[in-house]
Amino acid sequence: MTASLLLKNVRPNAGAALDILIENGRIARMAKDIAAPAGVAVEDGRGEIVIPGLVEAHTHLDKSLWGQPWYVNEVGPKLLDKIDNERESKKRLDIEPARQSARQSIQSSLMGTTHIRSHVDVDTEHGLWGVEGVMKTRDDYRDIVDIELVAFPQSGLLRRPGTLELMDQAMKAGCEIVGGLDPCGIDRDPKGHLDAVFALCQTYGKPLDIHLHEPGEMGAFSTELIIERTRALGMQGKVTISHAFCLGSPDPALVDPLIAQLAGLDIAIMTTAPSRSAAPPVKKLVEAGVRVCSGSDGIRDTWGPYGNADMLERAMFVGLRNNFRRDDELRIALDVCTLGGAQVMEIADYGLAEGKAADFVILPGETLAEAVVTRSPKRRVVKRGKIVARDGVSVRTAP
Amino acid sequence: MTASLLLKNVRPNAGAALDILIENGRIARMAKDIAAPAGVAVEDGRGEIVIPGLVEAHTHLDKSLWGQPWYVNEVGPKLLDKIDNERESKKRLDIEPARQSARQSIQSSLMGTTHIRSHVDVDTEHGLWGVEGVMKTRDDYRDIVDIELVAFPQSGLLRRPGTLELMDQAMKAGCEIVGGLDPCGIDRDPKGHLDAVFALCQTYGKPLDIHLHEPGEMGAFSTELIIERTRALGMQGKVTISHAFCLGSPDPALVDPLIAQLAGLDIAIMTTAPSRSAAPPVKKLVEAGVRVCSGSDGIRDTWGPYGNADMLERAMFVGLRNNFRRDDELRIALDVCTLGGAQVMEIADYGLAEGKAADFVILPGETLAEAVVTRSPKRRVVKRGKIVARDGVSVRTAP
Repeated sequence: MTASLLLKNVRPNAGAALDILIENGRIARMAKDIAAPAGVAVEDGRGEIVIPGLVEAHTHLDKSLWGQPWYVNEVGPKLLDKIDNERESKKRLDIEPARQSARQSIQSSLMGTTHIRSHVDVDTEHGLWGVEGVMKTRDDYRDIVDIELVAFPQSGLLRRPGTLELMDQAMKAGCEIVGGLDPCGIDRDPKGHLDAVFALCQTYGKPLDIHLHEPGEMGAFSTELIIERTRALGMQGKVTISHAFCLGSPDPALVDPLIAQLAGLDIAIMTTAPSRSAAPPVKKLVEAGVRVCSGSDGIRDTWGPYGNADMLERAMFVGLRNNFRRDDELRIALDVCTLGGAQVMEIADYGLAEGKAADFVILPGETLAEAVVTRSPKRRVVKRGKIVARDGVSVRTAP
Repeated sequence: MTASLLLKNVRPNAGAALDILIENGRIARMAKDIAAPAGVAVEDGRGEIVIPGLVEAHTHLDKSLWGQPWYVNEVGPKLLDKIDNERESKKRLDIEPARQSARQSIQSSLMGTTHIRSHVDVDTEHGLWGVEGVMKTRDDYRDIVDIELVAFPQSGLLRRPGTLELMDQAMKAGCEIVGGLDPCGIDRDPKGHLDAVFALCQTYGKPLDIHLHEPGEMGAFSTELIIERTRALGMQGKVTISHAFCLGSPDPALVDPLIAQLAGLDIAIMTTAPSRSAAPPVKKLVEAGVRVCSGSDGIRDTWGPYGNADMLERAMFVGLRNNFRRDDELRIALDVCTLGGAQVMEIADYGLAEGKAADFVILPGETLAEAVVTRSPKRRVVKRGKIVARDGVSVRTAP
């Protein structure tokens, strides 16, 4: 599963060129002119940029339609339309979670992603079908990508009786993170929803990553309830709020106190940098000390047709959404899609430094900003010291 | 310059497969099983989709840095910072308009664009340097793309004396469209600015395409002034407002009366579907009968690093910005980047129909929505019946 390799002539984060010696899947040395140890393969970096592996910190591996015939979307406009349509279509459309998560994982790896956090549907219609499928992919494709699972009550936690018990089973089955969803907007019972998901966190000693699409004042209220429970339960550093559209409210009197509390309690924010709605202000959050990560969200599913699992494209979206034009700002956007995700996922051995796991992407470009805006398909992807993708071809074959 | 060709087995707009016979650069017949006339080359369409040529209805060919060494952007945050920085840097950075517009035009053609409307800077620092350069490209690259020029007072029309005279010279030199820019925000004299640009339109009998970044109430006020002059001068169908961020205001009391008047006077709207600011509601405008087109705006210039001239990617941005998820909505997004642009540019012989110019793109995919979200690089681009680009390789070489 791990490998040794001497990577010659690469430029870490677009800096000065050097060599990287990988031993047993870890970075052993980074220096100029390293001689190849006996029996270690050599890869010519051609003076290209090397960045740490891209981190897909929010997606839904179990429900992608990747590789399926085109799904003609005629779904209604409301959030519940999409939720209900998906739950009712999943078996009819043969969205088999093990196969579909494998397909998306390979596509992610091709694009340079080395770590994925996947929310996985848990509902009374399908039970743990999704969890079991994604766990199979996690185990079968460990050579190309690390996957962690969030047990996710997509259809609501309280409004569909039996879901909470299934969430409990999902955590017992080995999900690493407790999920949640719009405690006001979907479950119509913010106290009940949040007490329940935080209780699961307490029971299993696991972090929380909650979807919060609620806008404006309603989202701010739910955020406050999350903040209160994080503080009361001592869960600093263990909570992520995904989407957090409410932080994109134009009213600083609403947003600024929330950001100060998020920073104080080390509550992380995930944003896809959506263009269609309010979105968290990335630079302001980063400058306040909040961990910020990003993700593709659903990729080509019954919710919508978009997505290609490219976290460099996502970094561009972060830049476009936040009006980042300067090179130093593009660096922030890229960091959100690399280091920020690693911080949220608490990946201890992440980064371009001696002793860290050899998980990275080699790609052409003069500067990091150029790498982000160009999104070259000419990428070499290294996972635990092994080259797992080269110019759009994976070492693994999609099912 | 024009060609004959028999294109076998393509699916117009993802419909049923047929053949297209092109004679002298025009579509002569569209039918099943057309036999090749003697001496006419045959191209296998492989059952792929064919769409009419993509229309880049708003860009700045004269100022792209495409093909230059990477420009490290450290520019200040205000609009005037960017305007002043660019005017002061243009010669130092060797942004030679003829060369740079040729490079971007080839890139556009590679991506499937067959028609470009380019705003071209006219200012007291560079005079008609930009206009002359883009006109050279227009003439030299007529085989791959049609270009029309908007004389564009990027640095303001009234605040820098001498600019209006240069605009007059630019129109005399053959620019097809009069441009303008933020009559309140930049020139600080909305009446003076608009009277001047409309007077140029009257003098030369040419349409207007005005940049309007002004948000909210200020932008609505400028829009009203444009509406008043369009009506008074009988310029129905001859005015485009580019950007029109004010139409993205959340207040229907502000926006709806404007849209009704735009529709009534046939004033067109150009949107890049920006994610960082308010943006015109595309579906609402189209449903009201307003012509809507799109464009890349600046591509990799001193304003910002983004852009690849791909109008299919732009259609995806239109979709993402407007929360288009359904296939019928994606069709609207694509139409904006094809037919909408052709309507705004008044391209008489545009479209997939017998008698029209053979300007189109052949690309893989089951449906139009799939073509938009996939943005396959495997495109064949046909201009006046000749295949001018194939899988990212142009018949022309960039200077």
